[in-house]
Amino acid sequence: MTPVAFATDLRKTRDLINARLEAYCLERTAEAANHGSGYVTLWHFITKLLLAGGKRFRPYILLTVYQAYAKDGNNETVLSAALAQELIHFAMLVHDDIIDRDLTRYGVRNVMGQYEDFYTSFIDDASEKTHMARSAAMLAGDILLSDAYRLMGRVDVSKQLVAEATEIMSRAVFEVIGGELLDTEAAFIQDPLISAKSIALHKTASYSFVGPITMGAVLAGASKEEVKILQAIAERLGVGYQLRDDLLGVFGSEEKTGKSVSSDITEGKRTYLVEQFEQCASSQQHEEFFKVFHNIHASERDIAHARKLLIASGAKAAVETEIAHLVDDTTGLIETLCLTESDKQTFYALVDHCLQREG
Amino acid sequence: MTPVAFATDLRKTRDLINARLEAYCLERTAEAANHGSGYVTLWHFITKLLLAGGKRFRPYILLTVYQAYAKDGNNETVLSAALAQELIHFAMLVHDDIIDRDLTRYGVRNVMGQYEDFYTSFIDDASEKTHMARSAAMLAGDILLSDAYRLMGRVDVSKQLVAEATEIMSRAVFEVIGGELLDTEAAFIQDPLISAKSIALHKTASYSFVGPITMGAVLAGASKEEVKILQAIAERLGVGYQLRDDLLGVFGSEEKTGKSVSSDITEGKRTYLVEQFEQCASSQQHEEFFKVFHNIHASERDIAHARKLLIASGAKAAVETEIAHLVDDTTGLIETLCLTESDKQTFYALVDHCLQREG
Repeated sequence: MTPVAFATDLRKTRDLINARLEAYCLERTAEAANHGSGYVTLWHFITKLLLAGGKRFRPYILLTVYQAYAKDGNNETVLSAALAQELIHFAMLVHDDIIDRDLTRYGVRNVMGQYEDFYTSFIDDASEKTHMARSAAMLAGDILLSDAYRLMGRVDVSKQLVAEATEIMSRAVFEVIGGELLDTEAAFIQDPLISAKSIALHKTASYSFVGPITMGAVLAGASKEEVKILQAIAERLGVGYQLRDDLLGVFGSEEKTGKSVSSDITEGKRTYLVEQFEQCASSQQHEEFFKVFHNIHASERDIAHARKLLIASGAKAAVETEIAHLVDDTTGLIETLCLTESDKQTFYALVDHCLQREG
Repeated sequence: MTPVAFATDLRKTRDLINARLEAYCLERTAEAANHGSGYVTLWHFITKLLLAGGKRFRPYILLTVYQAYAKDGNNETVLSAALAQELIHFAMLVHDDIIDRDLTRYGVRNVMGQYEDFYTSFIDDASEKTHMARSAAMLAGDILLSDAYRLMGRVDVSKQLVAEATEIMSRAVFEVIGGELLDTEAAFIQDPLISAKSIALHKTASYSFVGPITMGAVLAGASKEEVKILQAIAERLGVGYQLRDDLLGVFGSEEKTGKSVSSDITEGKRTYLVEQFEQCASSQQHEEFFKVFHNIHASERDIAHARKLLIASGAKAAVETEIAHLVDDTTGLIETLCLTESDKQTFYALVDHCLQREG
């Protein structure tokens, strides 16, 4: 499968998921009207965020894997499960933004941000307003999480398969919440046993890759052995995706990623790249780097120098090598899957897309 | 069924649910250990709160209704659904306490309270510590909500019944979140369409009564007509329970309720009782009452006077009349249920317990 064909496929799924998400939000907004105008407003704010962005990558991989293994090949059978992935994802985004005190997402005001604006006419005190906006956003995340499970109840397969798929979803949520807690506490509790890679495994791999990929296979009735291999592939894809993200966050093109390529350094994000740097760097490189790292007053020139140090120390190359290993591993694992050559091509394209991307 | 027999029955269920909740927490704590010591701590804090209190009333009514309709009569079949009620309840309590900025519950530190203590050794800045404690407590509520649905996947009945029961749970969550939002916004947005009774219906009736009662019946395979009557009973029980709670919060015995009988007045809680007062009171009574209401500096004598005004105005009697109507309504509805006389007796005892209680 060529990158162009892959992109077309992804875009088609995105359009389908967007249409269904919009319909779902309309349905919920109408139901909310029985509970006062405030609840309608909450659903408006949820809708605005849900439709503002998102590549719908999780639904896409769930449907792709389902298609590869299912005999009927009808997306409608499991579309609710695909939508559920997106609701879980947004529930986590809404709560993650509360923790990070961010008010924007996808270039628009997130749920808390919209509430900050909305409550301005009602609450004068700024910290009181923030508390109320945060509280409402927390409730928005709660209903999205609950509704994700609601949608799982609508998947049109056997009881056994629905139960297994729901168990996969709850395991992904269990892991992503553990990862979120790790990530939050990492700012003030030093746990020597916790590496950036293990946070990536828990926070990104679990619900962005392992969840959708294994769920797609389970819903299609794939064998336990096959699901086990897919789990191994998904973990590597998730970690690799994060490592690539870390590299792009420092060496990427802002035009292509749509994100700052300075803030990871100035905000002191402890990525695998930084961990590698700490292992490879000379004491002088170390000293120079940490004058810039986690320094929000660092100049563009300082940041450029920090980038050079990450290269000169060998840290960047070490991450690239690690990604190359993950590409090899996943490629080898994909070869062993009980799939047609054409379905395997889709998996290879997925690896390329996640691990070799530029944006 | 005598009140004593009812109390014994409730206590037996409580012991069973407590034992299962403890086992569940132990299992989750062990799994959390794979995700760093921080996640183990989070599960310790959840466990402490979960086992600190709670009458397990929601699991009790689910099991009681199930027993009345099921042919097998084996609690084990639906015990996961009963536990799920309790996890949902605690998820909501944890998030509700965050919104209310409360740090204790059942006489112990709640999840956020425990984190405030725990983070003291790591974070000096008080507001930063509060933010982190609140963030961790939010994640604790999230995993409890997710795990409630996880448990629903383990209920040992047909796919159709599990799907219906899950739909009931998600409806209850949808309504309680709407009610929570209403309640939160009521402090600063005046919506003339929203009464204390409608908040009671959404916030208390939905997930404390309608959810467990209709779920118990659905899981036992009760007919749609029967479930409809049970829904009507549950709504009235829930509203009546809240109205009784409002009366006890002002006229109750602190010894029996374990709660302050002044704070509802001094904190200005807009209950149905207060709404009735506003309708019945003379302008002088009105003026005198609102000098005490929502006045945290009010003396014991002031509060005693406010109580007298609630009686003299006829507001207390109006609420008692409303409760008496609800007792009549529910009693009439119970008579029409397709149940044995002995099972109906359990329902009458439930009405007594909820609407005529003293603590």
